[in-house]
Amino acid sequence: MNDTFLRACRGEAVDYTPVWLMRQAGRYLPEYQSVRSHVDFLTLCKNPKLAAEVTLQPVDILGVDAAILFSDILIPVEAMGMRLEFSEKDGPVLSEPIRNRGAVEKLVIPDVEDDLPFVFETIRILRKELQQRVPLIGFAGAPFTLATYMIEGGTSRTFVNTKRMMFQNTAVFHYLMEKVTDMLVPYLIGQIRAGAQAVQIFDSWAGILAPADYKKFALPSVRRVIHEVKKEKVPVIYFVNDCAGILKEVKNAGADVVSVDWRIDIADAIKKLGKKVTIQGNLDPCALFLPREKLEEKVKEILWKGEAAKSHIFNLGHGVLPQTPVEQVIALVDTVHTFGKRG
Amino acid sequence: MNDTFLRACRGEAVDYTPVWLMRQAGRYLPEYQSVRSHVDFLTLCKNPKLAAEVTLQPVDILGVDAAILFSDILIPVEAMGMRLEFSEKDGPVLSEPIRNRGAVEKLVIPDVEDDLPFVFETIRILRKELQQRVPLIGFAGAPFTLATYMIEGGTSRTFVNTKRMMFQNTAVFHYLMEKVTDMLVPYLIGQIRAGAQAVQIFDSWAGILAPADYKKFALPSVRRVIHEVKKEKVPVIYFVNDCAGILKEVKNAGADVVSVDWRIDIADAIKKLGKKVTIQGNLDPCALFLPREKLEEKVKEILWKGEAAKSHIFNLGHGVLPQTPVEQVIALVDTVHTFGKRG
Repeated sequence: MNDTFLRACRGEAVDYTPVWLMRQAGRYLPEYQSVRSHVDFLTLCKNPKLAAEVTLQPVDILGVDAAILFSDILIPVEAMGMRLEFSEKDGPVLSEPIRNRGAVEKLVIPDVEDDLPFVFETIRILRKELQQRVPLIGFAGAPFTLATYMIEGGTSRTFVNTKRMMFQNTAVFHYLMEKVTDMLVPYLIGQIRAGAQAVQIFDSWAGILAPADYKKFALPSVRRVIHEVKKEKVPVIYFVNDCAGILKEVKNAGADVVSVDWRIDIADAIKKLGKKVTIQGNLDPCALFLPREKLEEKVKEILWKGEAAKSHIFNLGHGVLPQTPVEQVIALVDTVHTFGKRG
Repeated sequence: MNDTFLRACRGEAVDYTPVWLMRQAGRYLPEYQSVRSHVDFLTLCKNPKLAAEVTLQPVDILGVDAAILFSDILIPVEAMGMRLEFSEKDGPVLSEPIRNRGAVEKLVIPDVEDDLPFVFETIRILRKELQQRVPLIGFAGAPFTLATYMIEGGTSRTFVNTKRMMFQNTAVFHYLMEKVTDMLVPYLIGQIRAGAQAVQIFDSWAGILAPADYKKFALPSVRRVIHEVKKEKVPVIYFVNDCAGILKEVKNAGADVVSVDWRIDIADAIKKLGKKVTIQGNLDPCALFLPREKLEEKVKEILWKGEAAKSHIFNLGHGVLPQTPVEQVIALVDTVHTFGKRG
């Protein structure tokens, strides 16, 4: 098996910088759209055969160094008893947002194996299919990010409901975070025991917090998740979107790999994170619209700067956008493999 | 006149830290809503008597140390020939977004005095009304931020159209930026000559760019605006939202005052900006939902950290939210005045 990705996660010597891309399985791929033309998004997430099929597409088409489980961070939130829908226009909608203690009380901690069997089944299928190829990454949302969706009922521009609960009903907010954390630990451990060889925790919205508030309201829960999951002895990656202002705190979450968005110079991020973690990132997804030569320049610069870190896994700073031309994504992976050779 | 704000802009000695708030005239004020119940937003912006009235409301109600012209950053964009509407749900809508050279060619550089007389008339009324009270701030959007609205047709989550033009039709993008810059310079100088005693340039969306792209695509134009406007000898404030990753570049824009959002520790921002600029900011607008005592703690921390800068003007890291209780905003201004005393 190509274990370059796992070696980089652990900071071991590698022959080249490994690369995978957030949302590498997604709407920009005609092969994905062909599967989606028959099923809606949630059905796809819950059908192990189809979820495994779309997970494998970018491994075949792009030649990336890792596969990531096809799923959604809100799948286990639905299993906590919230009604989840995906609208083409507004994205995820949780129709009865959490606004008080009663609503938190009603949330259940799912028995992950019984309530989310399709997730683990997808992982088992994938491990069989991938055996001689690349490692499989499992994933979940970070507690704070999941809490924002649960409180807002979807995405938000200002996150005023989340922060109002944080600031005015702090005990209720902590209670919610605790329940989400209690769900996440067995959910991620279950993924690892089913075969995931690394896990990534997505903190898509932690970046909306002032550094002191991140430290107080978001960091303790994600640190607990990471601490518990690390006992399973697989690498834990922590992706924080819009991380530039809070990176000094993010370092204290305890992850093996920190994945950063594109709004920070990767050289600055490496300086802030120090020599104990592997860095992952951080090309602007929109850089895939650049002419080939300029894309290559940007990739080379990130690779070159990445050498200052303990180890570097190339990725985008956020997910591949649906409008991205496939041939550009293929070229990106080739470019990383060509110019990321070591020694 | 209370010139504490202007003195802080210039880095001169002050008796206390001055404070004003972005969107201090706005929907959170019943007095503002009462005016708005008779007129729509754009009509309000274009009616000097009413615009002056709502500009003065927070000076009376909050006791802030500066007034800021009531207007919208897209007002001069409309004068360039684009159709502008405000929808209650989606915010500003420019119905025929700029996507090619032909569309940029059709944009006109307005004769600001002839085409936007209401802006200057509002300023003249305000200066008369404010004479013995506080200074008046004029404002405009930064070239990049205005360009994003013009290209996207409104706000955006990914700014994919803007970046696609930047990366694929670079000459057209630069042409657009040049036209916007050519409009902005006389627009801001006109405001100063009409009586604005300082100007703030709002770069609400510069923070979506990778640092190298900010430097290449956004910084040169805003630097030109600032350079030209500074010849008028009034302080220029540059607000950059989500600035943590690009602050080292922002420093080079040449503004007298840099205004930062709340996602960065103000102590870190001061370190990056150095001793040559005044800092403005940076309380999370949602902190106004905190219980009084905790709000006070946060304000005191920002004031205390602000002392490390050349000078500090207290502000929010973004605009006051419509849901904010007025009494909390009043308490905030009082708290800054109480704990921001010097010497």
